Amino acid sequence: MSRRRRVYEGKAKILFEGPEPGTLVQYFKDDATAFNNKKHAIITGKGVLNNRISEYLMMRLGDIGVPTHFVRRLNMREQLIREVEIIPVEVVVRNVAAGSLSTRLGLEEGSPLPRSIVEYYYKSDELSDPLVSEEHVTAFGWASYQELDEILNLTLRINDFLTGLFMGVGLRLIDLKLEFGRLWEDEEMRLVLADEISPDNCRLWDRQTNEKFDKDRFRRDLGNVQEGYAEIARRLGILPEAGPRDLSGPETIQ
Amino acid sequence: MSRRRRVYEGKAKILFEGPEPGTLVQYFKDDATAFNNKKHAIITGKGVLNNRISEYLMMRLGDIGVPTHFVRRLNMREQLIREVEIIPVEVVVRNVAAGSLSTRLGLEEGSPLPRSIVEYYYKSDELSDPLVSEEHVTAFGWASYQELDEILNLTLRINDFLTGLFMGVGLRLIDLKLEFGRLWEDEEMRLVLADEISPDNCRLWDRQTNEKFDKDRFRRDLGNVQEGYAEIARRLGILPEAGPRDLSGPETIQ
Ligand SMILES: Nc1ncnc2c1ncn2[C@@H]1O[C@H](COP(=O)(O)OP(=O)(O)OP(=O)(O)O)[C@@H](O)[C@H]1O
Ligand SMILES: Nc1ncnc2c1ncn2[C@@H]1O[C@H](COP(=O)(O)OP(=O)(O)OP(=O)(O)O)[C@@H](O)[C@H]1O
Ligand SMILES: [Mg+2]
Ligand SMILES: [Mg+2]
Repeated sequence: MSRRRRVYEGKAKILFEGPEPGTLVQYFKDDATAFNNKKHAIITGKGVLNNRISEYLMMRLGDIGVPTHFVRRLNMREQLIREVEIIPVEVVVRNVAAGSLSTRLGLEEGSPLPRSIVEYYYKSDELSDPLVSEEHVTAFGWASYQELDEILNLTLRINDFLTGLFMGVGLRLIDLKLEFGRLWEDEEMRLVLADEISPDNCRLWDRQTNEKFDKDRFRRDLGNVQEGYAEIARRLGILPEAGPRDLSGPETIQ
Repeated sequence: MSRRRRVYEGKAKILFEGPEPGTLVQYFKDDATAFNNKKHAIITGKGVLNNRISEYLMMRLGDIGVPTHFVRRLNMREQLIREVEIIPVEVVVRNVAAGSLSTRLGLEEGSPLPRSIVEYYYKSDELSDPLVSEEHVTAFGWASYQELDEILNLTLRINDFLTGLFMGVGLRLIDLKLEFGRLWEDEEMRLVLADEISPDNCRLWDRQTNEKFDKDRFRRDLGNVQEGYAEIARRLGILPEAGPRDLSGPETIQ
């Protein structure tokens, strides 16, 4: 395993070639970035927590029949995934006004929405991930009408399920960013949920106090970022057996 | 309030005329029946627990935009609801084989299903609520194609959300029975979730041990029926402040 090829290094994760064709190893870093890379920090233990949280949520989604890229967790910082062709669209589903929606539409953060709203953003760092509509997605061929329809259905199911799951542990799922990809199996193409589901790409507030436990702690300098992520993992019942002081340092990286 | 008219008395609940036109008061009894009324018992405290559990679940479903008949809880055994025209179809959604599906198709109880399965049963005590298909429902005019389509969509959303909510508190939602009704508002008809959602009409097993906490404790003489229902309420964080000894006796009935 000592000469695994690095396929891609992103802001929060590294992808390595996997043990078998069609697989990748997803390594979760402690790096946190915001505002399209203008803000950067290391949050010790974040990668370990996101690896566990994403493993858990992908498995529970698999249980209800949502197809995902997740195969299994390998160690504290790595998980085995199926390699997919990423659809270059970030799918955001919002249940409560927050973040860029609040800003763009002048809605007070925390105000309820008439219904859950699904938004599409074109994945492009140079362009700062611009908001696009179904028109752009289909016209530029990033996804077909049929794919977008399936993505919308999967997104609404995922949102309903996770809203319930988090509510059961005292957390409000305010919004959530998803990525989907194409997978070929016996000449057949299927869509699966890819990337990660973690406090890096959703907003989670305490149901009683509205305390934030997600990446907004980092974006807004609220402090205790790692503690927020750990609180989410603790409530989900999946805090790694290891204590917080074991969360630092790389597990397998070469 | 002392001469409210009794509109209907069923096996588990009584409906009274409500304070305003178009409303009803739903009173939860302690009576438990099974096998189409052949088995009957009083489970002290069941009505109080079901009133609370159904209130909680209907409110949480309302939060995610599922329309329901629920208005507000009035007291320990009663809730105010909107009067609807009940669609005479019991909608059952199953995530794991159990009960009559196991029996009819020879599937071991607890075995996974290829996907969640929605079944329709014609509401008729004389006929013992027979299984029917979409064909029967639409041909006999119990619901239109369009209504059935909306019912199916709502049912899948409700199932995803409740599966997540219960998973968050360590419970597996095995299956669930729903009823829907028609409501007129400004000449417009809408479908809403009606009746109740409680351990009387779903199966809930402990996620680790598969211990049953639902009405199967009564159907199969497993004992501790009230304790099973109370455990569900406790995990949802909604056990009434009152201790178990306060659960007996009627609250308001005349
Ligand atoms: N199963 C998969 N197969 C292939 N690529 C994947 C898979 N799951 C996620 N990815 C991609 O891997 C990368 C993960 O790295 P990271 O999240 O750090 O990227 P990023 O810095 O956010 O940049 P990007 O804008 O590309 O997402 C993303 O580009 C994501 O789209
Ligand atoms: N909002 C509503 N408006 C009118 N009727 C309702 C409403 N919600 C539930 N009902 C009906 O009220 C009755 C509730 O009583 P209960 O559950 O005890 O009946 P039951 O013995 O199960 O008999 P049934 O076979 O009619 O359901 C049911 O018939 C149900 O369909
Ligand atoms: Mg990313
Ligand atoms: Mg009934």
